[in-house]
Amino acid sequence: MIRLHHCVSARSFRPLWLLEELELPYELILHAFPPRMHDEAFLAVNPLGTVPAFIDGETRMTESAAICQYLAARHPEAGLDVAIDEPGYGDYLNLLHFGEATLTFPQTLVLRYGHFEPPERRLPQVVEDYSRWFLSRLRTLEPRLASGHWLCAERFTAADVSVGYALLLASHLGLDERFKSNVRDYWARLQAREGFQRALQAQHAAALTQGVSPTVSMASC
Amino acid sequence: MIRLHHCVSARSFRPLWLLEELELPYELILHAFPPRMHDEAFLAVNPLGTVPAFIDGETRMTESAAICQYLAARHPEAGLDVAIDEPGYGDYLNLLHFGEATLTFPQTLVLRYGHFEPPERRLPQVVEDYSRWFLSRLRTLEPRLASGHWLCAERFTAADVSVGYALLLASHLGLDERFKSNVRDYWARLQAREGFQRALQAQHAAALTQGVSPTVSMASC
Repeated sequence: MIRLHHCVSARSFRPLWLLEELELPYELILHAFPPRMHDEAFLAVNPLGTVPAFIDGETRMTESAAICQYLAARHPEAGLDVAIDEPGYGDYLNLLHFGEATLTFPQTLVLRYGHFEPPERRLPQVVEDYSRWFLSRLRTLEPRLASGHWLCAERFTAADVSVGYALLLASHLGLDERFKSNVRDYWARLQAREGFQRALQAQHAAALTQGVSPTVSMASC
Repeated sequence: MIRLHHCVSARSFRPLWLLEELELPYELILHAFPPRMHDEAFLAVNPLGTVPAFIDGETRMTESAAICQYLAARHPEAGLDVAIDEPGYGDYLNLLHFGEATLTFPQTLVLRYGHFEPPERRLPQVVEDYSRWFLSRLRTLEPRLASGHWLCAERFTAADVSVGYALLLASHLGLDERFKSNVRDYWARLQAREGFQRALQAQHAAALTQGVSPTVSMASC
């Protein structure tokens, strides 16, 4: 059975969402955020001390966008992967990475230096620099979302989950007020998916059962 | 013919290195750093204004680790990819992403707030926070490099190029003095590869031919 270590609304929401899209069985283990501060034993599960920590037999993974690709590729019948010989393969890989490296990391700086650090260590300059960075990169998605429901390959794929999580994080940070129209509509379509809704419900149910606060803990930093 | 837009020692070194490992023909276009500041026409090639910009027929890509995976997967005979049904597939994907999202982005903060910003906007706190972040994440590679020459799948793969670039960037930032022994030895092995050496030579030759300074411009920020 797949096991996923997760914090509410952290990057581990990506594999949780993908598991729900694929309707696979899994065990969800919820941690208070940040996990390495609340549970030293977690370092034995993941020496990085971060979520996600994902275990599938002998496979252990910690990078959320990579786990999405792994799950999609190992379950090709669902069509969430783009195969190596499809014309959209390069575009798919690019967007999987773009969702994390270009759209999520900058937001973790906004979170860290705008919210998590104690007041004397907050840095408004970094918050402003990386809010702008995020929004300018996000705008480059507008043209492709004018003509399609989803990002690539003319269907919903793991790349939408990678980018979709960046939009979820932005909505927690209040950056969604500055989305342009095509991204705003796309974000509404993503939230309306049954898989997304089931992932939110699974997260909430696990928080209640496992005695973890169901409020937002957001990305690791 | 594949076309790669590149700045000296920027993330676009990853696909350059992979092209040399695969011994594929390509056209290398060198830009002064940062490209969007020196050549407004470049925004027509890549609206993000960043390198790499990679064009292979209809495929256009901008995420360096994704390009490595794309090239490796489209040329499986070289063994630089790990196939979906191999046991090391998840590990391979994880390391491809880890090299960029976990090991490279933090260093771009060191670069930006320690070197590129004008003196009044430099932030020693960020430089210290993310130097420590990088080094603590890097240490988690020590155990796996004790028993193997390369990171995963018992052979050299595109994941080594992804992580290897993070080590190249660290060496430009002087962070290599703080590498632990297994990573230090691994970095020496990477530099000794013929493909790595050919990529350095190709970069140097293009700089001279195309009138761009061959000195380090490093990562985009």
